[in-house]
Amino acid sequence: MPGKWGYEMVARPLKTGYSGVIYPVNPKGGEIFGLRCYQSILDIPDHVDLAVVTAPAPNTPQLMQECVEKRVKGAVLITAGFAETGNKGKMLEDEVVKIARGGGIRFVGPNGMGIWSAAGQLNLCFETMPKPGPIAFVSQSGTFGGYLSEIATARGYGLSKFISIGNQADLTASEYLEYLVEDEGTKAIVFYIEGLKDGRRFFQVAKEAIRKKPIVIYKGGSTRAGARATLSHTASLAGSEEVFEGMCRQAGLIRAQEASHPFEIAEALLRQPLPRGRRVAILGSGGQGVVNTDACVSLGLEVPEFDAETVRSLKELLPPHAPPPRNPVDFAGSYRTALEEASITEKLLSLDYIDGVITNVPVNPMIWGLKPTSTGTNGLLPNTSKVVIPGIELFVSLPKKYNKPIITLRFRHTDNDSVADALREAGIPIYDTPEQCARAMYALVKYAEAQRR
Amino acid sequence: MPGKWGYEMVARPLKTGYSGVIYPVNPKGGEIFGLRCYQSILDIPDHVDLAVVTAPAPNTPQLMQECVEKRVKGAVLITAGFAETGNKGKMLEDEVVKIARGGGIRFVGPNGMGIWSAAGQLNLCFETMPKPGPIAFVSQSGTFGGYLSEIATARGYGLSKFISIGNQADLTASEYLEYLVEDEGTKAIVFYIEGLKDGRRFFQVAKEAIRKKPIVIYKGGSTRAGARATLSHTASLAGSEEVFEGMCRQAGLIRAQEASHPFEIAEALLRQPLPRGRRVAILGSGGQGVVNTDACVSLGLEVPEFDAETVRSLKELLPPHAPPPRNPVDFAGSYRTALEEASITEKLLSLDYIDGVITNVPVNPMIWGLKPTSTGTNGLLPNTSKVVIPGIELFVSLPKKYNKPIITLRFRHTDNDSVADALREAGIPIYDTPEQCARAMYALVKYAEAQRR
Repeated sequence: MPGKWGYEMVARPLKTGYSGVIYPVNPKGGEIFGLRCYQSILDIPDHVDLAVVTAPAPNTPQLMQECVEKRVKGAVLITAGFAETGNKGKMLEDEVVKIARGGGIRFVGPNGMGIWSAAGQLNLCFETMPKPGPIAFVSQSGTFGGYLSEIATARGYGLSKFISIGNQADLTASEYLEYLVEDEGTKAIVFYIEGLKDGRRFFQVAKEAIRKKPIVIYKGGSTRAGARATLSHTASLAGSEEVFEGMCRQAGLIRAQEASHPFEIAEALLRQPLPRGRRVAILGSGGQGVVNTDACVSLGLEVPEFDAETVRSLKELLPPHAPPPRNPVDFAGSYRTALEEASITEKLLSLDYIDGVITNVPVNPMIWGLKPTSTGTNGLLPNTSKVVIPGIELFVSLPKKYNKPIITLRFRHTDNDSVADALREAGIPIYDTPEQCARAMYALVKYAEAQRR
Repeated sequence: MPGKWGYEMVARPLKTGYSGVIYPVNPKGGEIFGLRCYQSILDIPDHVDLAVVTAPAPNTPQLMQECVEKRVKGAVLITAGFAETGNKGKMLEDEVVKIARGGGIRFVGPNGMGIWSAAGQLNLCFETMPKPGPIAFVSQSGTFGGYLSEIATARGYGLSKFISIGNQADLTASEYLEYLVEDEGTKAIVFYIEGLKDGRRFFQVAKEAIRKKPIVIYKGGSTRAGARATLSHTASLAGSEEVFEGMCRQAGLIRAQEASHPFEIAEALLRQPLPRGRRVAILGSGGQGVVNTDACVSLGLEVPEFDAETVRSLKELLPPHAPPPRNPVDFAGSYRTALEEASITEKLLSLDYIDGVITNVPVNPMIWGLKPTSTGTNGLLPNTSKVVIPGIELFVSLPKKYNKPIITLRFRHTDNDSVADALREAGIPIYDTPEQCARAMYALVKYAEAQRR
């Protein structure tokens, strides 16, 4: 029946294009989606790579025993009713672990929502597929993890793997991390964690891991009342927030503070050069520059004043009615061409006391309803195959040229914008608010500092 | 020419359905959009209600003088190049103010982006119209204010008025506030402010105003570097953050911390009953409840434990595999019908030690692909004219019945969802993240506390 775990574990991979073979198992026999249900895994006339278990908790030891006999090497335990429910459940969980260990089986869960792999096309978790991409997501909460993945997809961030780790009875956060650091499709790793079972080992692994890939961590249970809730949710001891924060800082993990932050932050860490210091130049219109500066400074970044020579050269690049150039640079709400924005951004990136630039997604003059001209004064040249906007090529080349990051704010909400596409292709992150930009730059700075240690 | 202010001030109201008469003025004469351009306002053969000035700053005193002669009573000065550029500009601005005052003219600006009124259909600011609604928005930054309005519209929040106040040479934030408190179409007021010209008066007006309507304030220049930038942007002295925060607290204004917050917060304050205290009950799945609790507690709200009797009755309302009920209530990722969610929410609202509830947008069983049944076990009853989801009527009636607020999280991203529509119609706010929900509840608590003083 739709909504039942047993049904969904067959329906989802079938619906979302899993190319392997699925053998449903149901003691009652019968058929599902035209597939024969075997009454036991032992009846399956083939080797089984992965067993997905949704049967009631008390049946799990017996099923795990059958998996051992069938020489299965991996399992995913969806079933709840183990350690998260108290002592009796904990004993049942220990029994399952003992059987699995004895038989050489490693397993995910129990009390999880399963796994999803973009590369393997194996989807146990989602009604609709997440957007494939380079971010792996490991979540201690199943439903909430699914929801965070949905948010990520809705905002355009692509995932490589999703693992709902549940109670971590066998495989733990540290082991998933060890795996993902080596996983080719993964370029950044996001964790939702309530409490670490093996905190010491996790942070040891993480400290090494961040030399290869950035790790963003969003933690539930950072307050006393929240921590109380994690105990009944995933049987986790959330531990002291101060200790956890200290461990993250030492290991070089980036903390995310809200549900909407982890993937935004991971995106910034994917392809941009790392800043050498904390000094940021900001280019934006009036209030945007003001609040961007506030947001940067509040996070501990610096927004240094410019030298006289730079002020002089910026003055030449800005419209006559713009106020005297300072940091943040105010282009006074003018319609800027992409070329002008690229030139100012380049000037800022070239300064030896600036480590990164926050600026706008360059304006596509078409959104102002300006007609293409061949003179280029409106910044737009017509082309038979695609629209070429002078300055975009320069703009997207800048991070590499100066080995410094650019973070951009999308100041106009436009769909189907060739400028935004060019930035995304070049790996320059785009955000909707000044505070998101500041957090992204801060994450780059923190990751760079961790790398240098 | 498109992009030029003079052009846009005629193009925008025409394009967006202004029903009044527009008289373009241009010393060169000619025509625009088929309208004759008068060479001077004095040539217009009719009474003029409002003059919109985009001419260069040095010409403004002369134009203001002509407005006086024409007996115009109101003006909007778009023109920049006044106090924000330094002493010389300040003297020019003072001259314009003197002429206007002498002639009985009140004006908006200069150095602003104009005004927009949903009721008056007068749009000087936007390329595309904002969504009409009950929130008035007063911004000290023009372009950034326009961008914030765009964000509001993109996220479904409706605006009644937008005023880009610029340098506030004549009309100030206090006066706009006095006006908006009496404005019928306005139910909540949002400010983006960099520095108050008449802080003392503003907070006096605000203190009275909040008895009628909530005020949300987002401030630029709260850090030293940010404050430095406000000076050249809007000629504002941002002042001490500590003093400003203290004044807001005393007057009962709600502070917004990020560009995406002000309208989210205003939405919560529009139609929900005000909580009597700070005690919140939370209903959500696993991790969602955990981080929602963290977010509430971090803001100073309380998430009290339940009494034994409540635990017993909640147990009966929850699925058998759910962990023992506590606050936050974990419904264990189950597919809940709207009726079940409504019943649990009602139980929580009925507790005398709970002042408000954060819960999920009730599940529409159709998103699970469940077929409508007439038994109601899936929570869905077919109806010839529209889908009726049992429980929704109960759910939306609860805030009024218990005189306590409900804040909801949309846990599944679905378009065209009749459940979400029913909630919106009833004035129950919907958010995407636990942290947004916590901020909304916090704003209600703060506003209630201010009201009680």
